[in-house]
Amino acid sequence: MKLPERTVERLSEYRRSLLQCLEEGKTHIYSHELANLHHNTAVQVRRDIMFIGYTSLQRKGYDVRELISVIGEILDSESGLNVAVIGLGNLGRAVTAYFVGKRSRLNIIASFDVDPNKIDRVISGVKCYSLDRVKEVVESQEISIAIMTVPANTAGEVSKQLVAAGIKGILNFTTAPLNVSPDVYLDEYDMITSLEKVAYFVKRAKK
Amino acid sequence: MKLPERTVERLSEYRRSLLQCLEEGKTHIYSHELANLHHNTAVQVRRDIMFIGYTSLQRKGYDVRELISVIGEILDSESGLNVAVIGLGNLGRAVTAYFVGKRSRLNIIASFDVDPNKIDRVISGVKCYSLDRVKEVVESQEISIAIMTVPANTAGEVSKQLVAAGIKGILNFTTAPLNVSPDVYLDEYDMITSLEKVAYFVKRAKK
Repeated sequence: MKLPERTVERLSEYRRSLLQCLEEGKTHIYSHELANLHHNTAVQVRRDIMFIGYTSLQRKGYDVRELISVIGEILDSESGLNVAVIGLGNLGRAVTAYFVGKRSRLNIIASFDVDPNKIDRVISGVKCYSLDRVKEVVESQEISIAIMTVPANTAGEVSKQLVAAGIKGILNFTTAPLNVSPDVYLDEYDMITSLEKVAYFVKRAKK
Repeated sequence: MKLPERTVERLSEYRRSLLQCLEEGKTHIYSHELANLHHNTAVQVRRDIMFIGYTSLQRKGYDVRELISVIGEILDSESGLNVAVIGLGNLGRAVTAYFVGKRSRLNIIASFDVDPNKIDRVISGVKCYSLDRVKEVVESQEISIAIMTVPANTAGEVSKQLVAAGIKGILNFTTAPLNVSPDVYLDEYDMITSLEKVAYFVKRAKK
């Protein structure tokens, strides 16, 4: 069974809240509490969680630890997946520093750049390689996911190199929309669009 | 007429491609070309553009310059809107550097932090203020939008300060989901969720 994208997103979000609950010493949570944390309805939460085959038999709500584990079985790979950051400008460094050390089955183990001052150094905790070596490093280190933070005008070319190197999933943070073959999973996020959307609704509210 | 969120997002994305076309000297574009750039259908493109009251009478497709201007009338504020970045860690600096200098009616004119080493300095091209002064600065500089890149455990508290200071739109890049009053527009983006989604579909494809 392959879950819809939105369901996967919500499960990931629930898990982060559940981990937070665990840290705070909370052992059980009701669907309506989880819903409140995520601008969601209790019905949606219960539907998502039933969908992955878990039901709470307890009047105190879901067992936080159990639910984290069930979501983990769905979302995580047993052996983890290896990730590379492509392009170590401001955003690339921020993304690398952000992920390194976060508890996760997703390991950022390499970065790539074209700048000789960055190549062969450890930056934000991760070794930076020359983009020329992407195929060799992706293969030898079994990297399957790439986070793209290169300049927009090089994004198309770089994405082709990544796919040729065997990358199976791309998270594209450049402003250039990409075209990749259908066996590569692509997720794109453009900050400018998000900011323009916020601005549009702020402007409307002002009127 | 208030456009749906998704429509606003698509218009923002179309405009970025249209600006790119203009740079490349392309004066006209067909709906199917625009659709291809955005993993979209020509029908959807034509519907979006008709929705904002523009129709192409030309066999060569839409006039790129005209369409940019029509989208601008919908999305932009005449006087522009002022934006502040809250939290100048790695991500905050990356976001600031990313936006400053981008042609836009959205001006990042201030940043806020609690670190004495950052306060009262110009960082990534923008003056950094003490978070304690947020109300005063937001009012005097007429800032209406905040981009939040503070640590997750302070996000709730900071969002309250922002709303109390008069902020009308928040773009939340922390991993903490926020609750704000309904007259404040909130958009949230969590990189970890995007990466976990990519990982899920990569894992499924491997099987």
